[in-house]
Amino acid sequence: MSEEQFLDVAVEAAKSAGEIIRKGFYQTKNVEHKGQVDLVTETDKACEDFIFNHLRKHFPDHKFIGEETSAALGATADLTDEPTWIVDPLDGTTNFVHGFPFLCVSIGLTIGKIPTIGVVYNPIMNELFTAIHGKGAFLNGSPIKASSQDELVKALLVTEVGTKRDKNTLDDTTSRINKLLYKIRSIRMCGSLALNMCGVACGRLDLCYEMGFGGPWDVAAGAVILQEAGGHVFDPSGGEFDLMSRRMAGSNGLLKDKFVKELGDTN
Amino acid sequence: MSEEQFLDVAVEAAKSAGEIIRKGFYQTKNVEHKGQVDLVTETDKACEDFIFNHLRKHFPDHKFIGEETSAALGATADLTDEPTWIVDPLDGTTNFVHGFPFLCVSIGLTIGKIPTIGVVYNPIMNELFTAIHGKGAFLNGSPIKASSQDELVKALLVTEVGTKRDKNTLDDTTSRINKLLYKIRSIRMCGSLALNMCGVACGRLDLCYEMGFGGPWDVAAGAVILQEAGGHVFDPSGGEFDLMSRRMAGSNGLLKDKFVKELGDTN
Repeated sequence: MSEEQFLDVAVEAAKSAGEIIRKGFYQTKNVEHKGQVDLVTETDKACEDFIFNHLRKHFPDHKFIGEETSAALGATADLTDEPTWIVDPLDGTTNFVHGFPFLCVSIGLTIGKIPTIGVVYNPIMNELFTAIHGKGAFLNGSPIKASSQDELVKALLVTEVGTKRDKNTLDDTTSRINKLLYKIRSIRMCGSLALNMCGVACGRLDLCYEMGFGGPWDVAAGAVILQEAGGHVFDPSGGEFDLMSRRMAGSNGLLKDKFVKELGDTN
Repeated sequence: MSEEQFLDVAVEAAKSAGEIIRKGFYQTKNVEHKGQVDLVTETDKACEDFIFNHLRKHFPDHKFIGEETSAALGATADLTDEPTWIVDPLDGTTNFVHGFPFLCVSIGLTIGKIPTIGVVYNPIMNELFTAIHGKGAFLNGSPIKASSQDELVKALLVTEVGTKRDKNTLDDTTSRINKLLYKIRSIRMCGSLALNMCGVACGRLDLCYEMGFGGPWDVAAGAVILQEAGGHVFDPSGGEFDLMSRRMAGSNGLLKDKFVKELGDTN
């Protein structure tokens, strides 16, 4: 099968899961809090089941790593060289609960451990980001490219504060932000790492980073999309990006070295 | 003239200015950087001129305070008891430059210094927030209300890091965020204070604050909209909101006291 066929099937899965999410999104405001938690869990699970079933039907020999499945197992499967679908059925669950419209389905495929297919779909804002390794990145079918900004002081950075609330993590998080603010234009925090990477890919944002996020499902699709848009995806130290490390940084095509220097200075 | 007529004229002005912004928004990616700066200035100025002319035609005796006019004068006019239109023609200029879709026209009217009419329009996402003092708040014509969340630990807070980069301001900004993160669920930063207030008004967000922002044009419309949606607008100390103070905090109907306590603990 061709990579284009892999992409088509992934887009079908993302769009159908997006329908489930959209329905839930407009219900969240009308359910009690306990009901909200159930709704998130149900929506997350229903989407992952739908996506995995759809992909398995077409690709019975492929491997699968999903956020919900991994949570149920209490562990993330090892990444092998086999074609492996890495899925976050609903990235931005806090936004989903609150009715804040930044959330997405994220479906990535690695082959030989290399992120090869990426699909990120925001069903509320109707934005579909797609990419195939070596074949460019697209937003709703139109080619996208990362920004051409080459000055840090004019760069817009997106990050998140994560979910950990221990003192060490929080102090690291806010001192890093403090130091970066001297160097860049401003910061955005929108609540979805996959969409943050797509924001850099389409030039709305120039830089992104996050450490200690959930797992490879948050970045597998975004990594292909950002790289194919002419951007860079790397470890915050400047080293090679490791999909399984729960550490990532991204930039347009021009700012990587300057950004790594500042991230290094904040370690 | 009735308040409903004031609102109708303000909505007409916001929608026409929104057209100018939308046109510029989709051009920003195609101009060189110097051209981008010009485009922002031109769009900002063209929108303020259009809005002021439209309002003046209908309300020749009213007073006007605008971001662009105040910048040109180097001072913000004093607020009087006269009916006064307070206008930010383009809130979220950084987002405008970068093509990030959170930006808006903000038009407020005070009468006897009380925020009485509020119109906030995001022309990219096509969201129109409106309110008349005492008569409820609306999003695209449908009534909105602030969230019913009463636990800080489940609350989503929105703020901004502002534009000042001196050490005192930055340290205050990030230490406040550090301390609040122990108490709340998470933080969003989207780049438009007027839209942040509307986000709390429609229940997508639960809390907002900002100190040292540009001027009353950032909050005059949002204050009516948030209050009419059942939320609170106040000074971060917990004292009365002062439109001219460049300090604001907002909450849904239930979290004000808890939020003030934590904001106080961060001063």
